[in-house]
Amino acid sequence: MNPILVEVMRGTALESAHRGALAVLDADGAVLAAIGDVQRPIFPRSAVKVLQALALVESGAADRLVLGDDELALACASHGGEPMHTQTAARMLEKAGLEADALECGVHWPYHEDSARALAAEGRTPTALNNNCSGKHAGFLCLACALHTGPDLRRYVRGYIAPDHPVMREVSAALQAATGFDLATAPRGTDGCSIPTFAIPLHNLALAFARVATGQGLRPGHAAAARRLRTAVARSPLMVSGTGRFDSRVMERLGERVFCKVGAEGVYCAALPERGVGVAIKMDDGNNARASEVVMAAAIEALVALDVDDAAFMRGFSEAPLRNWNRIEVGALRASPSLRAALAPLSAG
Amino acid sequence: MNPILVEVMRGTALESAHRGALAVLDADGAVLAAIGDVQRPIFPRSAVKVLQALALVESGAADRLVLGDDELALACASHGGEPMHTQTAARMLEKAGLEADALECGVHWPYHEDSARALAAEGRTPTALNNNCSGKHAGFLCLACALHTGPDLRRYVRGYIAPDHPVMREVSAALQAATGFDLATAPRGTDGCSIPTFAIPLHNLALAFARVATGQGLRPGHAAAARRLRTAVARSPLMVSGTGRFDSRVMERLGERVFCKVGAEGVYCAALPERGVGVAIKMDDGNNARASEVVMAAAIEALVALDVDDAAFMRGFSEAPLRNWNRIEVGALRASPSLRAALAPLSAG
Repeated sequence: MNPILVEVMRGTALESAHRGALAVLDADGAVLAAIGDVQRPIFPRSAVKVLQALALVESGAADRLVLGDDELALACASHGGEPMHTQTAARMLEKAGLEADALECGVHWPYHEDSARALAAEGRTPTALNNNCSGKHAGFLCLACALHTGPDLRRYVRGYIAPDHPVMREVSAALQAATGFDLATAPRGTDGCSIPTFAIPLHNLALAFARVATGQGLRPGHAAAARRLRTAVARSPLMVSGTGRFDSRVMERLGERVFCKVGAEGVYCAALPERGVGVAIKMDDGNNARASEVVMAAAIEALVALDVDDAAFMRGFSEAPLRNWNRIEVGALRASPSLRAALAPLSAG
Repeated sequence: MNPILVEVMRGTALESAHRGALAVLDADGAVLAAIGDVQRPIFPRSAVKVLQALALVESGAADRLVLGDDELALACASHGGEPMHTQTAARMLEKAGLEADALECGVHWPYHEDSARALAAEGRTPTALNNNCSGKHAGFLCLACALHTGPDLRRYVRGYIAPDHPVMREVSAALQAATGFDLATAPRGTDGCSIPTFAIPLHNLALAFARVATGQGLRPGHAAAARRLRTAVARSPLMVSGTGRFDSRVMERLGERVFCKVGAEGVYCAALPERGVGVAIKMDDGNNARASEVVMAAAIEALVALDVDDAAFMRGFSEAPLRNWNRIEVGALRASPSLRAALAPLSAG
């Protein structure tokens, strides 16, 4: 039974609560924290996009296609489908010699509500470029340019989302190398964007992100790729998520000190280079917006040495007032006392 | 520790799970089922709008203003802010001699996405009429017409959302009478629409809905009001929720056999007249869309004698395939085996 990590208060009463688990490891595999069950395999979903993008950089495709920081950041992104995101994804495809119809991620309205309404106001409907995973998929298609030497790239990439397509095999191999978890025997599902997702313990995910943080434990090509991707996201933090969203806001503020990435169903992972650790979180109920984010904020507060202003900034996420439609403060979202207590011994402050 | 009531499967693996509690009582107070902690007070939020609307009917305001089924249903609604809803709310206000600016529920974009996009496409922004609670608030303002005999109604209703305003005192008194729970000592919070919300045990909420189902245990004025409100919702099921949403779809199909109503933060209540029982549900994590709905569907399956087609219809909610953006089936949402086992002895089938 995983503990309550986040409390939702209304007035002075507990209205709802979110349970979950959290692992913090260093690159040697030492466990700094293990709250709840960190050995049960869980689907990491989009939290591991940076691990999947290791292949894009190591393959030489990123160099060959001269991908910039914004494009590499978008390859690691779950973005809001804002114009800056769709334009960047389109440019990546153009560099690969492909168009939006090569994307096999599916179509949905932009998560960024103003962008969705702006589309509607123009009488338009969304395309696959608006899909929050379009950058990752554009990255897959750029990777294909390095894997495929023949002439007909369009034909080669068709069906690239299938587990046994060479592109997806390369992507999954990078995930396995970073996590050290045997994906052949892992429970497998299909992700929201139709690629395979493999269930991996939080223990291994935290280890993988410690490796991303330090380069230690990764082969040289992946270590260099991890560094480059972290730098790219730090330089283009709006690409990895979007206007007003947690990942972008935190990395706009803290730069290379934090690489954090949300995944669907209450998953969060982070690489904290100064501390040399990785963090992996899964909320039992799958809630991100008000659960895994709160836990990640509390973990960053504990694990990164923040000055007073930065600490207050992060506290704004881990102890956030809840307001109603009249902007009246009606309650609060907060990291639970037991989470704070479990993180306190790790404090970098 | 409340049990897992809903499982979210990806492939054949459990990806996420929702815990919660459920009470089923009859109007004599006999407990047919008590799963999890049904004595802890919880905020029922919008699930009790029908109880709050008892005052509107009993006061004579509904008769005096000649409110129709659609208007009475809207008074019990958490609606999608579709044009049919905003028009009906506006008509209620007109009957009360008021306008939209009297509403103190706050403003938000319509929950019904097509309606939100249509507003945006017309270059408009939402008003308080689009607020999912505008019908309830219009009902409060209609109630004010019965309570206030003086000339200046606009002035009388100002601040009607305050706990000690005569309108809100009348509404809270109806809630207390139906639930038999002393609200003076109950934990109190402020609801999303700014009126007070009182924490009440699921036990008492289920009892209140058994009373709504049967009239038994309510004073005559409230019993007649409950019958009239149930009938109104059965005749105008789209008003109480909206296009494609659970409450509307279930009541469009099952009519007066079921009165069910969602409340924020994972709450659901239902009155089942044929069985003479009330049902009250609270999910620990506050999830409605894929948790409390699933539990309510399973409860209706167990408690209402359904033919094969209606049972299959309800099963479509309690055991629902999950599809991704490419419409590929990637998993399922389902009532947990332990919930099914706990409900089985109650089976009406």
